[in-house]
Amino acid sequence: MTIIDTVPSVFETVESEVRSYCRAWPTVFARASGSRLYDEHGHSFLDFFAGAGSLNYGHNNPALKRPLLDYLGADGVTHGLDMSTTAKRDFLQTFRSTVLEPRALPYKVMFPGPTGTNAVEAALKLARKVTGRKTVVSFTNAFHGMSLGSLALTGNATKRAGAGVPLTHTTQMPYDHYLGGRVPDFLWFERLLEDSGSGLDHPAAVIVETVQGEGGVNVARAEWLRGLADLCRRRDMLLIVDDIQMGCGRTGDFFSFEEAGITPDIVTLSKSISGYGMPMALTLFRPELDLWEPGEHNGTFRGNNPAFVTATAALDTYWRDSALRDRTLQAGGRVEAALRELAAGHERLGMSFRGRGLVWGLELAHEGRAEAVCRRAFELGLLIETSGPRSEVIKLLPPLTASDDELDEGLGILARAVRHTA
Amino acid sequence: MTIIDTVPSVFETVESEVRSYCRAWPTVFARASGSRLYDEHGHSFLDFFAGAGSLNYGHNNPALKRPLLDYLGADGVTHGLDMSTTAKRDFLQTFRSTVLEPRALPYKVMFPGPTGTNAVEAALKLARKVTGRKTVVSFTNAFHGMSLGSLALTGNATKRAGAGVPLTHTTQMPYDHYLGGRVPDFLWFERLLEDSGSGLDHPAAVIVETVQGEGGVNVARAEWLRGLADLCRRRDMLLIVDDIQMGCGRTGDFFSFEEAGITPDIVTLSKSISGYGMPMALTLFRPELDLWEPGEHNGTFRGNNPAFVTATAALDTYWRDSALRDRTLQAGGRVEAALRELAAGHERLGMSFRGRGLVWGLELAHEGRAEAVCRRAFELGLLIETSGPRSEVIKLLPPLTASDDELDEGLGILARAVRHTA
Amino acid sequence: MTIIDTVPSVFETVESEVRSYCRAWPTVFARASGSRLYDEHGHSFLDFFAGAGSLNYGHNNPALKRPLLDYLGADGVTHGLDMSTTAKRDFLQTFRSTVLEPRALPYKVMFPGPTGTNAVEAALKLARKVTGRKTVVSFTNAFHGMSLGSLALTGNATKRAGAGVPLTHTTQMPYDHYLGGRVPDFLWFERLLEDSGSGLDHPAAVIVETVQGEGGVNVARAEWLRGLADLCRRRDMLLIVDDIQMGCGRTGDFFSFEEAGITPDIVTLSKSISGYGMPMALTLFRPELDLWEPGEHNGTFRGNNPAFVTATAALDTYWRDSALRDRTLQAGGRVEAALRELAAGHERLGMSFRGRGLVWGLELAHEGRAEAVCRRAFELGLLIETSGPRSEVIKLLPPLTASDDELDEGLGILARAVRHTA
Amino acid sequence: MTIIDTVPSVFETVESEVRSYCRAWPTVFARASGSRLYDEHGHSFLDFFAGAGSLNYGHNNPALKRPLLDYLGADGVTHGLDMSTTAKRDFLQTFRSTVLEPRALPYKVMFPGPTGTNAVEAALKLARKVTGRKTVVSFTNAFHGMSLGSLALTGNATKRAGAGVPLTHTTQMPYDHYLGGRVPDFLWFERLLEDSGSGLDHPAAVIVETVQGEGGVNVARAEWLRGLADLCRRRDMLLIVDDIQMGCGRTGDFFSFEEAGITPDIVTLSKSISGYGMPMALTLFRPELDLWEPGEHNGTFRGNNPAFVTATAALDTYWRDSALRDRTLQAGGRVEAALRELAAGHERLGMSFRGRGLVWGLELAHEGRAEAVCRRAFELGLLIETSGPRSEVIKLLPPLTASDDELDEGLGILARAVRHTA
Repeated sequence: MTIIDTVPSVFETVESEVRSYCRAWPTVFARASGSRLYDEHGHSFLDFFAGAGSLNYGHNNPALKRPLLDYLGADGVTHGLDMSTTAKRDFLQTFRSTVLEPRALPYKVMFPGPTGTNAVEAALKLARKVTGRKTVVSFTNAFHGMSLGSLALTGNATKRAGAGVPLTHTTQMPYDHYLGGRVPDFLWFERLLEDSGSGLDHPAAVIVETVQGEGGVNVARAEWLRGLADLCRRRDMLLIVDDIQMGCGRTGDFFSFEEAGITPDIVTLSKSISGYGMPMALTLFRPELDLWEPGEHNGTFRGNNPAFVTATAALDTYWRDSALRDRTLQAGGRVEAALRELAAGHERLGMSFRGRGLVWGLELAHEGRAEAVCRRAFELGLLIETSGPRSEVIKLLPPLTASDDELDEGLGILARAVRHTA
Repeated sequence: MTIIDTVPSVFETVESEVRSYCRAWPTVFARASGSRLYDEHGHSFLDFFAGAGSLNYGHNNPALKRPLLDYLGADGVTHGLDMSTTAKRDFLQTFRSTVLEPRALPYKVMFPGPTGTNAVEAALKLARKVTGRKTVVSFTNAFHGMSLGSLALTGNATKRAGAGVPLTHTTQMPYDHYLGGRVPDFLWFERLLEDSGSGLDHPAAVIVETVQGEGGVNVARAEWLRGLADLCRRRDMLLIVDDIQMGCGRTGDFFSFEEAGITPDIVTLSKSISGYGMPMALTLFRPELDLWEPGEHNGTFRGNNPAFVTATAALDTYWRDSALRDRTLQAGGRVEAALRELAAGHERLGMSFRGRGLVWGLELAHEGRAEAVCRRAFELGLLIETSGPRSEVIKLLPPLTASDDELDEGLGILARAVRHTA
Repeated sequence: MTIIDTVPSVFETVESEVRSYCRAWPTVFARASGSRLYDEHGHSFLDFFAGAGSLNYGHNNPALKRPLLDYLGADGVTHGLDMSTTAKRDFLQTFRSTVLEPRALPYKVMFPGPTGTNAVEAALKLARKVTGRKTVVSFTNAFHGMSLGSLALTGNATKRAGAGVPLTHTTQMPYDHYLGGRVPDFLWFERLLEDSGSGLDHPAAVIVETVQGEGGVNVARAEWLRGLADLCRRRDMLLIVDDIQMGCGRTGDFFSFEEAGITPDIVTLSKSISGYGMPMALTLFRPELDLWEPGEHNGTFRGNNPAFVTATAALDTYWRDSALRDRTLQAGGRVEAALRELAAGHERLGMSFRGRGLVWGLELAHEGRAEAVCRRAFELGLLIETSGPRSEVIKLLPPLTASDDELDEGLGILARAVRHTA
Repeated sequence: MTIIDTVPSVFETVESEVRSYCRAWPTVFARASGSRLYDEHGHSFLDFFAGAGSLNYGHNNPALKRPLLDYLGADGVTHGLDMSTTAKRDFLQTFRSTVLEPRALPYKVMFPGPTGTNAVEAALKLARKVTGRKTVVSFTNAFHGMSLGSLALTGNATKRAGAGVPLTHTTQMPYDHYLGGRVPDFLWFERLLEDSGSGLDHPAAVIVETVQGEGGVNVARAEWLRGLADLCRRRDMLLIVDDIQMGCGRTGDFFSFEEAGITPDIVTLSKSISGYGMPMALTLFRPELDLWEPGEHNGTFRGNNPAFVTATAALDTYWRDSALRDRTLQAGGRVEAALRELAAGHERLGMSFRGRGLVWGLELAHEGRAEAVCRRAFELGLLIETSGPRSEVIKLLPPLTASDDELDEGLGILARAVRHTA
């Protein structure tokens, strides 16, 4: 297959230089279905990026598409601010019955605006309001968003510099494995907390991703997460799990923190919560934290009702039993096996891999190599992207609904792309 | 008509206390069309709030609905990150041909994420990056959003307090009319700028709404806006017009600043840009400011392609000629006349009004009176909301597509609600 | 008289480029007495700068020198941290009996460290602690010090830029006369305070100089100061008068705010409080504000006992009756008359003057002219300096103890220097 | 000996509650000489606190007192702003010949104001100006001062809270021994610096005390200091040594960092630099960093000429040969031996000790014990104070000029006080 690498003129002449993914995948996409995108020339691409985790159920999933078309066709409320609507009620009821009640999670649900960064900004406000403190701890290589509050929690130096003002009221702690196993978990963090002379102003909260997607597919051990939850409890800090990329089944369970058996105080969800790739986000929290004044945080698009419709359909379809969870874990095993084989053939290249559920990272230590593999994979019909501070990790996020054949096809292209760029 | 004021239980038990509009309008909405919303009991409500300005073309406008259903039905790309898609290309080409070129505006277009606050945060980053400065000036009673960067520009004390951290790098100047006409325009601002001992760190930019919607329907004179643009030019500050609520024809012209004959350096758009109430936002800027690094600002939902489809249809339908603009100005005159009559009958109550195009404010000086009128209007079948620092101004934002009959009906309900609450 | 303008080598080779006054007065001073400094070549200089207001009683005043030599000779405690010493007790008792009691001022006395900026930093801490708020309002062209907290209150752009970090939690209001009398006093400030949508976070305090020495000898009217005190009282803000340069009799009364009949909540004193030019500072406040924890603010040199000795002697000598006050006002009249005559002869040059007590400013609108006059005055044997954002104002701060002959001599040199630089 | 514990009334009624040392030592001191203070009742106290390190040469040292009295008696310039004076020239020449040249240190000398916090604030400004960066790294349990800039570098939670505003642009790293030797030196710090995703904004500088006096007499190993200097060099950060308490011979050498063989980029000195307990401070830096504009940092009391006179005398008397250095190390051995014996008898009490030169800490793990010992020691005629985050460490800072008999007497009282409070 040959891709003609000519960026159409209006993107070059009218769209800002800030555009990014369109540079890595230089074609114009027209249609999408399941695990595949098609460009306007009819070329097909396996999508192992899945909207950066927004398309866990694949593109234009028919089980979600039908109720969406029905809703729009019948003039259901499209834009609803934060009014009560039938679509929102259906979503809340379904979320309660399929997600909260089965897990005995007592969370209140906030619609903070339709993007991940809205959910994080709301979580920060609430944590600071409830505790009366300001500092929030995040971890090395964290990614929590691009508005000023969430950007202060984000590790990437280029994105931080984009703020144009100092990013304050946050401090970083080492993520699991960060110091190469040479230091007991939380030794430094706990010392700072127990010592009134440490200079760490007592934090309102700690925010963590169970797997750092943007940061390089760094996987925290369940034991480490439990240690963190315990530290938060003992030292009176709220625990926020940012499950925007890893929630909604990406790691198997609906929430990525279930495996560790912990219950965060606050949880953020977005990306795949609408199921159909439409903007939607939630901030969940223990009811005793629900000290908001009405309207203290607001936003125009909190009530994206078409997204509620597809979100409800997704929960109904995939989360009334454990089938998707089981399939994700099984498929994850398939990916892992393929990566093991791939890495075994390239040990001398400093290749390594890691992952959980259906998020996997393939690290290629050699500068620029991972990006070269992704470029070649695009030419071969596979969409994958790099992550990590030096773009050194290829991130695999196939739809959870990908078939074994699709997984094998994508993994095959990956292996070829690795060989071609050796 | 009688509304049964019982909030359905799942909203009370599961949704956070932060919810707001649903408290003012205690029913559950099910359908919407044109200027009307319908609750699940079949009650009809004239909507003079229009999604806080997000539904300038009315609910579920058929001219936008058809292409949306076609696009979704044909498995067009729904979620596209910031990939190039046919839907995005159509939008960019149409935006260029219907909006930019006819006005000789050379702007580059950035998709900063799908909400207004994303657009403002991106504008702030760019202004600070380009100038290397930090301070951004906003105006008394401004509203620019709820994430940390845009919240620092917002005037409302309750919303500011919600940040939980100090809001910095911003300073406020008096909006037009703020000092009751007792002070020459920009006297204070210019003094601060010309005096190196004033303590004002030289601003990167000034951000302004031409009409302050949330702030109480405060209307800046064209002359004042020209004075501001001139000040920015002379004193080397970027001028950002936040046209999120007043753009897309709300004041008649597509951009609310056209009447004043000024060309801002940066413009933010959201709310009605998608035309169908779906999350979408733009940050526009002069091409010489486009100094972004690829991906320096990003976000998952920058490429909300269904919104691009309806946005394109809206531009095609309404902005290829001046019909909507002319209609808006005519309808505005109708509203103004009705408000004049209404106010004339209640002069002793400190009632006054102001507006432009189809955004109008009716101020009721007596504490709590405006809110009482809105409650009564809801009972009578009209959705309106208050604005202003003390919720003292009833804000009228009917769809631009409302018929004369609908306008008359709504204005009639308003007059009755005023009488009933006297 | 001819001054040989050769800076001795060790100042050039070893002292930092940050040195300043030594550049304006290029000689090496060896001795000082009363109103005069003498350089090592025996040249005599009338000192109308008086240590920037630190030498109100002249250089090496014999009434202070004797007790100082006695104290040091008898091995009185020199360095006392904040221990109780006989010297400190004498000072506190004398300060109470000569300053506080006669004026019915109930202030508690804090020793915040021996410099003005220490006193201001302590005042800020206390105001923020007591109110639980963060914002402090200062005025255009204010000068309050060079450490990070006080620098944020200072207007001068060059000095602000020196911080290297953003200066936050402060906002500026127009000083008296700043807007040329075109705006009612406090119109803007009061509007911001009364309007919950103004964006001004409610201030903890307002800090003001009654005469801005560094800012250009700007003199606030008593009426304006009373208006400010009233505003602070009505709007629940603490009023801090920074009397570091204008206190200790510079304007006639011991405190410069006495004339206005106001009682600030907090007062800072330094410069002439020791009387002998030795480092010493006080922060005074109403007793109900004394919510400090022991040691919550500290510093090594809070207990500069030799300074306590000279401070006590100065109070004993000059503040047990009204002689010094009366003399200062009389001498001020003499200076005023001379400046009036001088300005009358140079009206066409945009020359104007202003002042109070024995602080006077002579403004020379022409760029660089004021500095030229000061340079020439130095050559003629008079030390004077410029102030104001463009160094456009010659500041006269003769010792309060200067004789009529000395005043006339200095004013004569000034007049000659003006003529020579015409 | 019995001390009558009645605080004289003027201290209670007029001085602020913020006073601290006077509470621990409830008497009124009148005279001082060498290693002893005397209260007004004639009681004698051995002073092993020495002005918190400001009296390295003892109280009212005759070798300094004579030139001071001569200078004051002859009407030398007392207050000199930053004018060139003969006293300043003598000091600069003597500092160059006795301190800088023998150590081949090329430093420029800045007079930043007469207190330690002035010196630190100036160092911060310069480091930020030179590098164009904002973050400064300090260490756990650091103490650098009480004004807003230096307080942000200080670890103590109570003192930090006193700021009343968030302390920003700083971050803490673990001091030597902080993690109990379980982590390789600088592992965490270096990881943060090498990883562009760590979230640590690249620091302008690192500021360190070689021995943390206030933090609990924590002694950094020479090897650790060399590692830090190397890290700063490799990672392009300026190294600031805050030698305010440990400089001027306290650890033996004039600068406390000499032992480690490192050359900081910037050094702060204060406390004992004047030698006589008078306010004076210096900021030293490599000449290529001297990018200050004239007057960019200033302050009224930069030119405390009496302090220059005593400082010059101190350098002349004590730093033209190695006698004081040798004596300090010998005396330190004497203290160490006594502490070893004392601790050996109280091992079960969790007693430990550490120190260098003539700064020693005796840690008493039991809550409140160290303070009880200090109280008892006062009653027995010895002034000592606690340090450390929980006031758990008794700090010994005898004058470097203390005789063996005085050392033995003080150590004997300490041992008795320990026994009495067992």
